[in-house]
Amino acid sequence: MVDDRRYVITFSCPDRTGIVARIAGFLAETGAWIVEAAYHADAQEGWFHTRQAVRADSVPFSVDELRSRFAEIAAEFGPEAVWRVTDTGEPKHAVLLVTREPHCLHDLLGRVTAGELPVVLDAVIGNHPDLGRLVEAHGVPFHHVPFPGAKDPRKEQGKVEAFEKVRQIVEGFAPDAIVLARFMQILPAHLCEEWAGRAINIHHSFLPSFAGARPYHQAHTRGVKLIGATCHYATADLDAGPIIEQDVIRVDHGDTVPDMVRRGRDIERLVLARGLRWHLEDRVLVHGNKTVVFR
Amino acid sequence: MVDDRRYVITFSCPDRTGIVARIAGFLAETGAWIVEAAYHADAQEGWFHTRQAVRADSVPFSVDELRSRFAEIAAEFGPEAVWRVTDTGEPKHAVLLVTREPHCLHDLLGRVTAGELPVVLDAVIGNHPDLGRLVEAHGVPFHHVPFPGAKDPRKEQGKVEAFEKVRQIVEGFAPDAIVLARFMQILPAHLCEEWAGRAINIHHSFLPSFAGARPYHQAHTRGVKLIGATCHYATADLDAGPIIEQDVIRVDHGDTVPDMVRRGRDIERLVLARGLRWHLEDRVLVHGNKTVVFR
Amino acid sequence: MVDDRRYVITFSCPDRTGIVARIAGFLAETGAWIVEAAYHADAQEGWFHTRQAVRADSVPFSVDELRSRFAEIAAEFGPEAVWRVTDTGEPKHAVLLVTREPHCLHDLLGRVTAGELPVVLDAVIGNHPDLGRLVEAHGVPFHHVPFPGAKDPRKEQGKVEAFEKVRQIVEGFAPDAIVLARFMQILPAHLCEEWAGRAINIHHSFLPSFAGARPYHQAHTRGVKLIGATCHYATADLDAGPIIEQDVIRVDHGDTVPDMVRRGRDIERLVLARGLRWHLEDRVLVHGNKTVVFR
Amino acid sequence: MVDDRRYVITFSCPDRTGIVARIAGFLAETGAWIVEAAYHADAQEGWFHTRQAVRADSVPFSVDELRSRFAEIAAEFGPEAVWRVTDTGEPKHAVLLVTREPHCLHDLLGRVTAGELPVVLDAVIGNHPDLGRLVEAHGVPFHHVPFPGAKDPRKEQGKVEAFEKVRQIVEGFAPDAIVLARFMQILPAHLCEEWAGRAINIHHSFLPSFAGARPYHQAHTRGVKLIGATCHYATADLDAGPIIEQDVIRVDHGDTVPDMVRRGRDIERLVLARGLRWHLEDRVLVHGNKTVVFR
Repeated sequence: MVDDRRYVITFSCPDRTGIVARIAGFLAETGAWIVEAAYHADAQEGWFHTRQAVRADSVPFSVDELRSRFAEIAAEFGPEAVWRVTDTGEPKHAVLLVTREPHCLHDLLGRVTAGELPVVLDAVIGNHPDLGRLVEAHGVPFHHVPFPGAKDPRKEQGKVEAFEKVRQIVEGFAPDAIVLARFMQILPAHLCEEWAGRAINIHHSFLPSFAGARPYHQAHTRGVKLIGATCHYATADLDAGPIIEQDVIRVDHGDTVPDMVRRGRDIERLVLARGLRWHLEDRVLVHGNKTVVFR
Repeated sequence: MVDDRRYVITFSCPDRTGIVARIAGFLAETGAWIVEAAYHADAQEGWFHTRQAVRADSVPFSVDELRSRFAEIAAEFGPEAVWRVTDTGEPKHAVLLVTREPHCLHDLLGRVTAGELPVVLDAVIGNHPDLGRLVEAHGVPFHHVPFPGAKDPRKEQGKVEAFEKVRQIVEGFAPDAIVLARFMQILPAHLCEEWAGRAINIHHSFLPSFAGARPYHQAHTRGVKLIGATCHYATADLDAGPIIEQDVIRVDHGDTVPDMVRRGRDIERLVLARGLRWHLEDRVLVHGNKTVVFR
Repeated sequence: MVDDRRYVITFSCPDRTGIVARIAGFLAETGAWIVEAAYHADAQEGWFHTRQAVRADSVPFSVDELRSRFAEIAAEFGPEAVWRVTDTGEPKHAVLLVTREPHCLHDLLGRVTAGELPVVLDAVIGNHPDLGRLVEAHGVPFHHVPFPGAKDPRKEQGKVEAFEKVRQIVEGFAPDAIVLARFMQILPAHLCEEWAGRAINIHHSFLPSFAGARPYHQAHTRGVKLIGATCHYATADLDAGPIIEQDVIRVDHGDTVPDMVRRGRDIERLVLARGLRWHLEDRVLVHGNKTVVFR
Repeated sequence: MVDDRRYVITFSCPDRTGIVARIAGFLAETGAWIVEAAYHADAQEGWFHTRQAVRADSVPFSVDELRSRFAEIAAEFGPEAVWRVTDTGEPKHAVLLVTREPHCLHDLLGRVTAGELPVVLDAVIGNHPDLGRLVEAHGVPFHHVPFPGAKDPRKEQGKVEAFEKVRQIVEGFAPDAIVLARFMQILPAHLCEEWAGRAINIHHSFLPSFAGARPYHQAHTRGVKLIGATCHYATADLDAGPIIEQDVIRVDHGDTVPDMVRRGRDIERLVLARGLRWHLEDRVLVHGNKTVVFR
């Protein structure tokens, strides 16, 4: 539907007066009809962030023209200003990385098939072949890239080679999101760097509690009364990247580790799906190690 | 602290392009430093709503001057436009109406005493004297206005007279909020009218379920798995006014009606305190029978 | 795994002293190792309910023998006593009824495939063919039973015939659960009767609010701040059967009806999956129009 | 009301078959009417835990007699068995420790005054005099025990002396609970020992995240999307004792540290009130560093 097409502008710069007026004035001059507008002034950091969505059919020129005109506005706010103009008429693309755990993959495939998530899945890459059949049943190409086992004498070198293959497949698509849908392999620093702001991980704990391996075991040992999941951008610092979304569910003394694993899946699915949606809709602005999420 | 003082502008009008630009442009011209800005375009109703908070010390004239200048802007958007400019340096005032149930009253008194809620309590009016001592211990005047009992032959006339006394006390203060903190008497239509947009009720159910009397009994009979509370503006249509805030908590088969009553208090307290805060901070804009809440 | 196999006893009867002792004594005599035991005494109804799970390998005879021995115990508590002994080694069976909405179906198929839900799906019946391909990709038989359209002159008779076909397919499997996974057709009274305690519906509102058609539209019109979903046993009284599970999520003024529809799916999926699991694990005991859920 | 009086039995021992039967058989013989019964078999630890509440008027002898008879039963399960028999007709007692932060104190005083929490407050001890007036307005004795300031040269010795005064006041009451209601002083190891299982702390984070000082600052720095509170038994290991209850609320990028502090109070109040209630109702059984909470 033409009516649903939006141009989305995100913009961040050091705070000062007049930013809203400048941007709003520019949009008013073009006749752009604003359907969503959100602002955040971070007094502590001294930064300003905004996201604006306008009806595409209210803008009398192309999105490229909008980009080049907005670039001039942005330039007025100095070299630190960060901005982006996207067109919801141009679908976003994603590649998923998985291992054997199917629940997040199932959930994302189901959402994409049902038209709930605005994204084209270019490929799913698995370090095990197990999930290939299901992926292909949804019409999505599956790539099996084997990783060396724990006892492989060439383990380190094998990993380097496997990640290089993964990198090549991913880069062939230049996706907007690389989703580690319970991938369970630690991304090497150079890929975190290369995919900065695009690599999205789901960690099965309420970070910063229980970072690293086997978080449900850690949670069970500590006797917490809620378990959680965290969707965050992957960075070289393991499980410490900017958090996009988190949520929790209640557990009690009767829940064993397998119960927690099973029940935690419900929250992992939801948190990843929400975080990914916000990323794809350009609702997430990263500043330092934190996010502004204009839901 | 001077730095924390804000002028808060709320504005609603039929939607069209250029509204944000006009308001933002006006604020930019005055040099106003925007610390919070929220917008909502309701496509179905065709209405636009905004709330802006600016640093008082960034505006080079008085709040009255700001009001008269903003009035001109507002006038450009037609006679339907609704707006308000308030100054957080001028404290809001409230009157509480209570009966015997102390939990919401305790909670509000505690929050005001602790400086959590930005309001001056001018008076508490009770139709029973029970809570007077505690109210006065917090330095707040208590007015006992007896209401006729269920078997009083002059019940109807007595109610009319009692509500007239309540009205007189309330109007002596011209408060920003009249809070029915579990008052348990149905406000007559003319007072709902007179106090429109200022009379805030807490109903002990997740409306529209279980409106009217004894909602926890109704909930127990139906066997629901969550109970809730609703903070809304009182209107002549019982328990059907615009909803400001709602929340729920989980119950199970083991919870008796008294358990629900006790556990429900936790959610009544929270929902009323949140709704009242948003009202006092001019975060709630009413349109028709619904609210826009800029949290 | 033999170790995970359980015999599950559920038992309800008018309350009196000594019930726990009698059942526990019986289990102790047989040497049964109790791994889960839950009790509920409903003082208002004067009824007692219990669920006990024992390790199958701790019982020195067959489940049939356990059933016949327990029948004698149960008989001591009068003709009103209701009980059941099931064996988790004998998988439960379910048939799903769907229309075009895929989200609950996707979710359940994903959970079954991943081994999360202890059930065999005997068949999916759809009144539209749309979801057939996906169902069959999961190795589950799909039956298309067309229903008459809204303008069909033989609408009433056509419905009767279609439901008769559905009934025949369902009864061929004698399933433990008939799941209306957003089926959107009102089950006729005689099927509610025939499938009493087995037909599980997911309604897309927090009942009793917004029963009937288009609950998200109703919720949007009323301006509620939370939307919900309810999993309940279907009865002849539409959307009024015993509630198994409910949950809610927060919405705000920015959520349109389509937003609510999309966001509500997350809670529909979860609530149906939880309710169905508890039903399959014999955790749900129905008494009158209410449930005891031993989670 | 005589009818509401209960004898509550809690019992823990190494798991084996027949425990439920033995206890239930004993209760049946005495004619005890069980109104609540909960069991937990911890397969990993190999321990069994139960809590039973019986109607006092159904037991044909005194609670002391019940204790001495139950002692014999308990002895059959070996020297490791831990048990307790309490009488809800004998009110529990508590002492509160506070500093200047009033919110948890207000909340607990309000609940006790309203009859919501089944406890007698013997005293409130404050290391600042600020909250004394309010405490005494509720008819509860207030003791001011000054603690040395951060720059006091005799700081260490002064603390030892102050804690000794606190200890003496507390021990004069031999309370069932010593509640650190945002006391903000680290309890010395010998008091943790002496008050083991009775000293209840509220920590203003979702432990184990953000233990120690200034948890809201830590949370803000990390950019988490939920903040929480934890009620736990105080042990010599700071913020690492057995967790009784936890809960969280959502925050977003717009929440400053003061916003988090304010909003966190709502969850601190609730979590402490719930944890304390369960402790007072003998619903919390500690095993190792974890709790079984029979809600």
